[in-house]
Amino acid sequence: MSDKINILDYETVELDTDTNELVIIDQTKLPGNIEIVRLKSAQEIWDAIYLLKVRGAPAIGVAAAFGLYILATQIKADSFEGFYKEFVKNKEFLNSSRPTAVNLSWALNRMDKLACTMKEFSIDEILEALKKEAITIKEEDIAVCKAIGEYGLTLVKPGDGILTHCNAGQLATCKYGTATAPIYLGHEKGYGFKVYADETRPLLQGARLTAFELQSAGVDVTLICDNMSATVMKQGKIDAVFVGCDRVAANGDTANKIGTSVVATVAKHYNIPVYICAPTSTIDLDTPTGNEIKIEQRPDTEVTEMWYKERMAPEGVKVYNPAFDVTDHELIAGIVTENGIAYEPYTESLKRMKNI
Amino acid sequence: MSDKINILDYETVELDTDTNELVIIDQTKLPGNIEIVRLKSAQEIWDAIYLLKVRGAPAIGVAAAFGLYILATQIKADSFEGFYKEFVKNKEFLNSSRPTAVNLSWALNRMDKLACTMKEFSIDEILEALKKEAITIKEEDIAVCKAIGEYGLTLVKPGDGILTHCNAGQLATCKYGTATAPIYLGHEKGYGFKVYADETRPLLQGARLTAFELQSAGVDVTLICDNMSATVMKQGKIDAVFVGCDRVAANGDTANKIGTSVVATVAKHYNIPVYICAPTSTIDLDTPTGNEIKIEQRPDTEVTEMWYKERMAPEGVKVYNPAFDVTDHELIAGIVTENGIAYEPYTESLKRMKNI
Repeated sequence: MSDKINILDYETVELDTDTNELVIIDQTKLPGNIEIVRLKSAQEIWDAIYLLKVRGAPAIGVAAAFGLYILATQIKADSFEGFYKEFVKNKEFLNSSRPTAVNLSWALNRMDKLACTMKEFSIDEILEALKKEAITIKEEDIAVCKAIGEYGLTLVKPGDGILTHCNAGQLATCKYGTATAPIYLGHEKGYGFKVYADETRPLLQGARLTAFELQSAGVDVTLICDNMSATVMKQGKIDAVFVGCDRVAANGDTANKIGTSVVATVAKHYNIPVYICAPTSTIDLDTPTGNEIKIEQRPDTEVTEMWYKERMAPEGVKVYNPAFDVTDHELIAGIVTENGIAYEPYTESLKRMKNI
Repeated sequence: MSDKINILDYETVELDTDTNELVIIDQTKLPGNIEIVRLKSAQEIWDAIYLLKVRGAPAIGVAAAFGLYILATQIKADSFEGFYKEFVKNKEFLNSSRPTAVNLSWALNRMDKLACTMKEFSIDEILEALKKEAITIKEEDIAVCKAIGEYGLTLVKPGDGILTHCNAGQLATCKYGTATAPIYLGHEKGYGFKVYADETRPLLQGARLTAFELQSAGVDVTLICDNMSATVMKQGKIDAVFVGCDRVAANGDTANKIGTSVVATVAKHYNIPVYICAPTSTIDLDTPTGNEIKIEQRPDTEVTEMWYKERMAPEGVKVYNPAFDVTDHELIAGIVTENGIAYEPYTESLKRMKNI
């Protein structure tokens, strides 16, 4: 594959409606190789999700919906009962690929619910409806990201320096990403942003994915180590910080990739606004504050070994490796959703965003 | 070599006075292999400094002084003139190993100055004096580190959590280190510190060296990525931050390994004191503020490739890789020297420290 690819010409997850194949960029090969893979069998699709060839909650959901439709086209059955039995088997198989990803089961259940309402229809009509539903799930994701981008874009001006952390990019969604959506939309308008991408230890999503996708789209991106944020902020290179999130509590406390709260604290010190880009689906009004968000601990080897090949720390050393941290709402200038921007007091504004 | 080594039983740089050999731990093999190497020839000693087998300004100075003495014992000459001609040749050769390291030329010049005053003495007497001088240089380094440790120890109490960044450890000096000196002295007294070592991207001195040396000494050390500092501070795990420094400006602004100012900013947010451990030789009263300190830019590949083997970022991506940053004096709770602890206003207290 050529490395002249422009990520904006692609969608992270596509359905080839001619061949009924799932088309994805194999993210495990990035940034070294840009490999577009076409998947058709249940095992191939399951592997792609399990092995993180496609990753990011929204992208996984769409891949699963497309996958379930593709597998449905391969079912040989004369009756709804025969068809549905196989359909559910496929659904459960795909759902087992990453059991903790909420969007995965959410998308599969949505497809299942539709199928259940169509007992009286022909298999062909059901397949047509499933295809439409999967495409709708994808279109909704793109629309949410685009809306976040448009609201986010009102917060910055041409030529601004923007810092982002981890990958809340196009590669984690179907198009635009969340934190990168204002960057891509501004780029299309010729805003000339100067973007700084934190490499994001330990798994380097910023270096491997964000720097890659922004570079491929022609965005002016500079890679820095996580511990260089204060330096670029002090030098006046950063006008705003855009990051994604995994969960937003009712008071605005936000869980996101480890290091986000460090960036936010340093940004506060230099009076730089930090914006969380959050589809309303990530706003969890049942979690009162960040203290109630459980933080996943990851294996030591992510820190002590790089690519699981070469040790970079002594054998047996104790490691603390939380995958996420919580950014206190006082450090957050605004939470950008597809329904608008929530400001303090978040306990009120987030409710409004959810209910629009 | 056994990995049951206790770093406190060793000195980073030793002179074997029986065999006239330089004995060092090969730091390029850490943390995977603990290899004690014995060096005797000019080329071996030059290589050890050039290839960073011995590193850290104080340790390099002492290694060079020992090296110059060892090479002097190998000179075959009957007259002072013949001896001194070879001596200067050796000095210049060793000095070329790392021309920018101040301590290297400083130590070699000190040895040279001594030799010049001894024209009327026998070669044996000169050698004896050179040996004594080199040992004195080392003893002075140990005394400075120990004094920093003793002053630093008054700032913490048993059981405290201490965070450190990069390696200002025993491996950078002859014994105790600077930032680690309070930790080691407290450890000897059974203080039971809980130490958190930042891995320190891009070169991972925290993971490879600090975690190694503290672990080998039996100190309770936990390795974290640089972007986890806010998490452990928010959890109340950190009572004080101790870091080394490369240069302290007259107003207390301090240049140290990149990321130090991030740690200091986050610590300030959580009301955790940050102490700079600084031999008075690093206090530069001729530099008014941190703005006048020139920051070295390092190669992109340090960030984009790990151990120069495996790419972790896209080809051609722009990288910003400053080796150091400046921590504003307002973020610093105290500067610990061998002559006492300097507090605000630093413009006055640092002068006192230099002049004691």
